[in-house]
Amino acid sequence: MNQYNQIKSQCFEANMQLPELNLVVYTFGNVSAVDRDKGVFAIKPSGVPYASLKVEDIVVVDFDNKVVDGKMRPSSDTKTHAFLYKHWENIGGICHTHSTYAVSWAQAQMDIPIFGTTHADHLTADIPCAAPMADSLIQGDYEHNTGQQILDCFEKKGLSPEEVEMVLIGNHGPFAWGKDASKAVYNSKVLEEIARMAYLTLQINPKAPRLKESLIRKHYERKHGKDAYYGQGC
Amino acid sequence: MNQYNQIKSQCFEANMQLPELNLVVYTFGNVSAVDRDKGVFAIKPSGVPYASLKVEDIVVVDFDNKVVDGKMRPSSDTKTHAFLYKHWENIGGICHTHSTYAVSWAQAQMDIPIFGTTHADHLTADIPCAAPMADSLIQGDYEHNTGQQILDCFEKKGLSPEEVEMVLIGNHGPFAWGKDASKAVYNSKVLEEIARMAYLTLQINPKAPRLKESLIRKHYERKHGKDAYYGQGC
Amino acid sequence: MNQYNQIKSQCFEANMQLPELNLVVYTFGNVSAVDRDKGVFAIKPSGVPYASLKVEDIVVVDFDNKVVDGKMRPSSDTKTHAFLYKHWENIGGICHTHSTYAVSWAQAQMDIPIFGTTHADHLTADIPCAAPMADSLIQGDYEHNTGQQILDCFEKKGLSPEEVEMVLIGNHGPFAWGKDASKAVYNSKVLEEIARMAYLTLQINPKAPRLKESLIRKHYERKHGKDAYYGQGC
Amino acid sequence: MNQYNQIKSQCFEANMQLPELNLVVYTFGNVSAVDRDKGVFAIKPSGVPYASLKVEDIVVVDFDNKVVDGKMRPSSDTKTHAFLYKHWENIGGICHTHSTYAVSWAQAQMDIPIFGTTHADHLTADIPCAAPMADSLIQGDYEHNTGQQILDCFEKKGLSPEEVEMVLIGNHGPFAWGKDASKAVYNSKVLEEIARMAYLTLQINPKAPRLKESLIRKHYERKHGKDAYYGQGC
Repeated sequence: MNQYNQIKSQCFEANMQLPELNLVVYTFGNVSAVDRDKGVFAIKPSGVPYASLKVEDIVVVDFDNKVVDGKMRPSSDTKTHAFLYKHWENIGGICHTHSTYAVSWAQAQMDIPIFGTTHADHLTADIPCAAPMADSLIQGDYEHNTGQQILDCFEKKGLSPEEVEMVLIGNHGPFAWGKDASKAVYNSKVLEEIARMAYLTLQINPKAPRLKESLIRKHYERKHGKDAYYGQGC
Repeated sequence: MNQYNQIKSQCFEANMQLPELNLVVYTFGNVSAVDRDKGVFAIKPSGVPYASLKVEDIVVVDFDNKVVDGKMRPSSDTKTHAFLYKHWENIGGICHTHSTYAVSWAQAQMDIPIFGTTHADHLTADIPCAAPMADSLIQGDYEHNTGQQILDCFEKKGLSPEEVEMVLIGNHGPFAWGKDASKAVYNSKVLEEIARMAYLTLQINPKAPRLKESLIRKHYERKHGKDAYYGQGC
Repeated sequence: MNQYNQIKSQCFEANMQLPELNLVVYTFGNVSAVDRDKGVFAIKPSGVPYASLKVEDIVVVDFDNKVVDGKMRPSSDTKTHAFLYKHWENIGGICHTHSTYAVSWAQAQMDIPIFGTTHADHLTADIPCAAPMADSLIQGDYEHNTGQQILDCFEKKGLSPEEVEMVLIGNHGPFAWGKDASKAVYNSKVLEEIARMAYLTLQINPKAPRLKESLIRKHYERKHGKDAYYGQGC
Repeated sequence: MNQYNQIKSQCFEANMQLPELNLVVYTFGNVSAVDRDKGVFAIKPSGVPYASLKVEDIVVVDFDNKVVDGKMRPSSDTKTHAFLYKHWENIGGICHTHSTYAVSWAQAQMDIPIFGTTHADHLTADIPCAAPMADSLIQGDYEHNTGQQILDCFEKKGLSPEEVEMVLIGNHGPFAWGKDASKAVYNSKVLEEIARMAYLTLQINPKAPRLKESLIRKHYERKHGKDAYYGQGC
């Protein structure tokens, strides 16, 4: 009986959702699930296709990127996950994909404007696009610095990772997170949908206005506020 | 034997069509089915994923939004459904989705122009986009007022809900209805297709003209006029 | 043993390909298969969903649109099929769809320019878009006149229905044909692919040039010329 | 026991991936697998639909295009494959498709700019688009000359077929290759994804900048450099 079975299983299930949701092809993408008590997280092994991924392939790593369980090499993005878990104490899962529309906005180096209630049901801000990294940081500890880049972006824009559970890395692609690995995948899918709708909105009307503040607050609050009445309240 | 079994079953079947038709992801969207004799309608419970939805989860509500059957909380959009059933006596089902192209036109805050016979086979007018709501109404009884907003839009434009069975709510997304829940879902799918074609038409030719009146009448009448010859006449 | 079993079966199989190839939703579209010896053709009944279509539902009609076999009402587009069979003696099947990209070009009222070898593998001309019909013809025998409209378009442009097996009806959508019903469906799918590629080509490069004459001839001849070397030669 | 069974089987499996990956419709596309020791390669027969393709249909051809095994006529693009195998000694498989986005860039006659890390994970250069062929070459040995055209493009741009495993033929479509047939198909799928993302990137931001050199090097090296740490290192 492995003490990490629960997070390995959560991590495996969440990773397997990615191809089903059309968020990845081949080996692209990775999801992790944290165990705060033990100070470790489970993550997809690097370069393994989803079709052949097994739960026992999942690697367990501590916040200093040391493998504590598993025989395979963890995702090449592991240090970014570790950095975010270390600095953001309330997140339980992280998901990174190269989903088409989110990557396209990241390559365009633009925030995704909040245009409608689909967006406001999930967050009240534009989805931030972190600026490409300085050359010195790229040549340094790149994946660690990607985590730093996300943190800097949130600090500069005054965003909270509890309210904004997704980000674009300029020129690269999206990261999303949440209370657990499954929610992180959910946020990745929602981000892809919002990215697609925002793209189409601007094609139809290049002068489409941002959603007004009163509608942003209304939709966010009815789902996430203290008097929320969306869902079954449990 | 539950007296609401028939509308609950209709409502369940209609809701389950939404993911099959690629009109929703996760818990987005909701369909209802009315029983005019009893003055109630069956609607999807709030926040329940389609994959786990069961017919016994369906909630029955009266036109004053009081739950009369079912243990779950009804859709957060219930008041909009109730409002429309109360004011439009001839509709039997309502469907709300966040389908991609319809939402994008709604976010662009533009009516969908009638460009071809696919559109005219179903309605003779541009698909109306209701203006975003005044702030005071948003902060008031929001979902009730969304119904009012639809009604106002139809009155202002002189449209009949029997002839135009679909609308876009500016910044939000589409509502469609029909003689029953299944027809409401059908109209939602047709709307999504029309929205996609109109988008592509304008990308190919930004000066594409509206369909001329004679063709609008011809296609609508051959399907819906008193001498209609489309379908099996039953 | 019904004397029309063969064309009814061909017609049924060809119609059932349409939803599989993503060329139709619901009851949109219709395919027919001709029997030249008997002077009749088999066609889809009007308004019947593909999911419930059975081979015995297929209707057999002569070139004057008289039903000679079957209990259902034939497609509302039957007269267009009859007209084309009567005037073009070498075609064996006809397919009409509302496929997304072909309809969008038809709504844009533009010919689809020949941009590449995918197009030239199938035809050497731009895919013609017939102009919308005069009002007097719309109010007359509309579906018959749609056939006339196609014929006029081909005569005016000097096209041969043996070389160009597809057309767009302005504001409406595509018709395609071929030596049999299955080839007509094939041409409908190819048209949709070409329409999509041409759309994307112009979005990427609004000044993309037409394919040059030497490449048009080369690709068409290697597949269809007297020294063709594509396929198994049977 | 046929001495070509291994490459025929590899070739068959690789061809059958194309429809699964949505890279082809009908008979479009072809993959080959080489046996360097025997100086031959296995390739798809011409014009055979994937649904009915069997491993025994695969044709084996030498580098002078002579069939050495199999009863069917090989792909009409066989001479292009032979040419590339002859001149590029390190490639083990070749794949040609008419995938939608790659063809659209080819029809636009434009290189696909490197916009992000999805691209840099696979190659460090823009994906080259070879210029359309001179008329004299088209009328000559066309498929042989298509190989020449690819070689000329790589020489002119100073590219290595080991580093850049894909190309667009202007007005035609993509060719990709790799250490074996399966890798050639992988590269075809990656090319299609990159082509789609680059298209969307330019629609969102027509002034999107190319990826900067430091990020190009970083992403390529972490996957392909001497200190690569992506994958399981085997």
